[in-house]
Amino acid sequence: MKVIWNSQIVEREEVKIDPEDRGYQFGDGIYEVVRAYNGKFFCIDEHIERLYTSASKIEMAIPQTKDKMKRLMIQLLEESEVDTGNLYLQVTRGIASPRNHVYPDLSVLPTITGNITVVPRDAEKISTGIKTIIEQDIRWLKCDIKSISLLGNIMAKHEAHKKNAEEAILHRDGIVTECSASNVAIVKNGTIYTHPDSNLILPGVTKIVWLKCAKKLGIEVKEEPFTLEQLNEADEVFCSSTTIEVMPIHTINGYAVNNGQIGQVTQKLAKAFQEEIEQVCGKV
Amino acid sequence: MKVIWNSQIVEREEVKIDPEDRGYQFGDGIYEVVRAYNGKFFCIDEHIERLYTSASKIEMAIPQTKDKMKRLMIQLLEESEVDTGNLYLQVTRGIASPRNHVYPDLSVLPTITGNITVVPRDAEKISTGIKTIIEQDIRWLKCDIKSISLLGNIMAKHEAHKKNAEEAILHRDGIVTECSASNVAIVKNGTIYTHPDSNLILPGVTKIVWLKCAKKLGIEVKEEPFTLEQLNEADEVFCSSTTIEVMPIHTINGYAVNNGQIGQVTQKLAKAFQEEIEQVCGKV
Repeated sequence: MKVIWNSQIVEREEVKIDPEDRGYQFGDGIYEVVRAYNGKFFCIDEHIERLYTSASKIEMAIPQTKDKMKRLMIQLLEESEVDTGNLYLQVTRGIASPRNHVYPDLSVLPTITGNITVVPRDAEKISTGIKTIIEQDIRWLKCDIKSISLLGNIMAKHEAHKKNAEEAILHRDGIVTECSASNVAIVKNGTIYTHPDSNLILPGVTKIVWLKCAKKLGIEVKEEPFTLEQLNEADEVFCSSTTIEVMPIHTINGYAVNNGQIGQVTQKLAKAFQEEIEQVCGKV
Repeated sequence: MKVIWNSQIVEREEVKIDPEDRGYQFGDGIYEVVRAYNGKFFCIDEHIERLYTSASKIEMAIPQTKDKMKRLMIQLLEESEVDTGNLYLQVTRGIASPRNHVYPDLSVLPTITGNITVVPRDAEKISTGIKTIIEQDIRWLKCDIKSISLLGNIMAKHEAHKKNAEEAILHRDGIVTECSASNVAIVKNGTIYTHPDSNLILPGVTKIVWLKCAKKLGIEVKEEPFTLEQLNEADEVFCSSTTIEVMPIHTINGYAVNNGQIGQVTQKLAKAFQEEIEQVCGKV
């Protein structure tokens, strides 16, 4: 299996992370997941842009240019011969010894690792939806940074898993922010509501695309915070991420949304999103 | 250099972390720093206890018993021949592929790494104090877990470093919680105030000891939240951690505390703390 290691493509077995890598000791790093369909990346530029934005927000200088990074990602996809799957790309602040909270000087180069996993598109689930639970959003106040300090996220996801659900919808004091690994939106009387980009949520690449789709379809979107009460009274609820696209939510905390029927707006949006993919990557 | 790797002591060079270790990809792990003086650990049982408590809070089962872990730590200290220094011990949820937010099943064993660094005791600084800044506490809401998802902590510490300060005092909406890598307390009219143990702060091992010292010395302690205003009006301010002991703060955001004079209560407490060390580890 081929993987990215710093500026090269190497065999998976060659990659060994130092125990004093700051990614390992401090969660001091960032990442992206980029989806490929038919051997072509979808929204690769948007993901690379966000990776470098995350880096800049934690004052980390990625040694590669965006172009070089993109070439490396494409090269890995080609060499992996993966058709449909996820590229996981992670950049940490590098190896610094002895351990010290303070960032090392810039002579310490970031560690870059990346690999591709085959993950077929789950068209059925995109049409039938998923089960979710509601959890308190216990994460930090810089959720706009796609950081690898993810313990808050994975705890919420694991709670969902324990309750046979696939996602946890997070709220802070009754305001819904996002899910543990996706953005979330509700539909009420034909209008979509979703939390505006801020320090409380990740600016979703998938969201950028469905916002564009909604505009094309003439569906009104209000990027404003909504409450748990609004969530409970919503006509439709969906979440979105690179790996799950526009994904209907049919159950929240054991209660069916819209009597378990996937709503029209979500269906239209999921279909329009698929068309966006197909324009770039061909039929999926 | 000898280090701990899982259940053994090995040479530093042998340790290679897998890029799909959950510590590396999710900050999914916990840690402790234990201080040694004169070749003897101080408060080792308290640190081990907290390590296992952190593990249990994230539903992670450390395969070693506490006794076995303690023997391993003592063995490393002996083999390292370190006199005064810090043992860093980290436990992650182990290697799980493909990457998935959900915890892997219990057949995946945690990865344990540990090393010792020589760090002399800085008696001068403990008597003269440090400079600090004030930062917003942007961390998650489970700060009682000593997790390696530390990006929020290191960002605060780095802000302090940029301003030539050594610590950042953190506050949530005007309530002082702790520092980026230590607990914090103020003294007003002879009484010590410090944030009570809760989800917002780490239950400090060093704090346990100085609370005991304060009791012995007849100094009143109120474990209750205090505000930035109270911080600004305090007679004395100090922070405490395993590595810095009871450490006076002489400057906050460029302003001198108590006209730059280290207060009596802090001095007494730092001295009593030193005596506690000496009872266990001998003269320091």
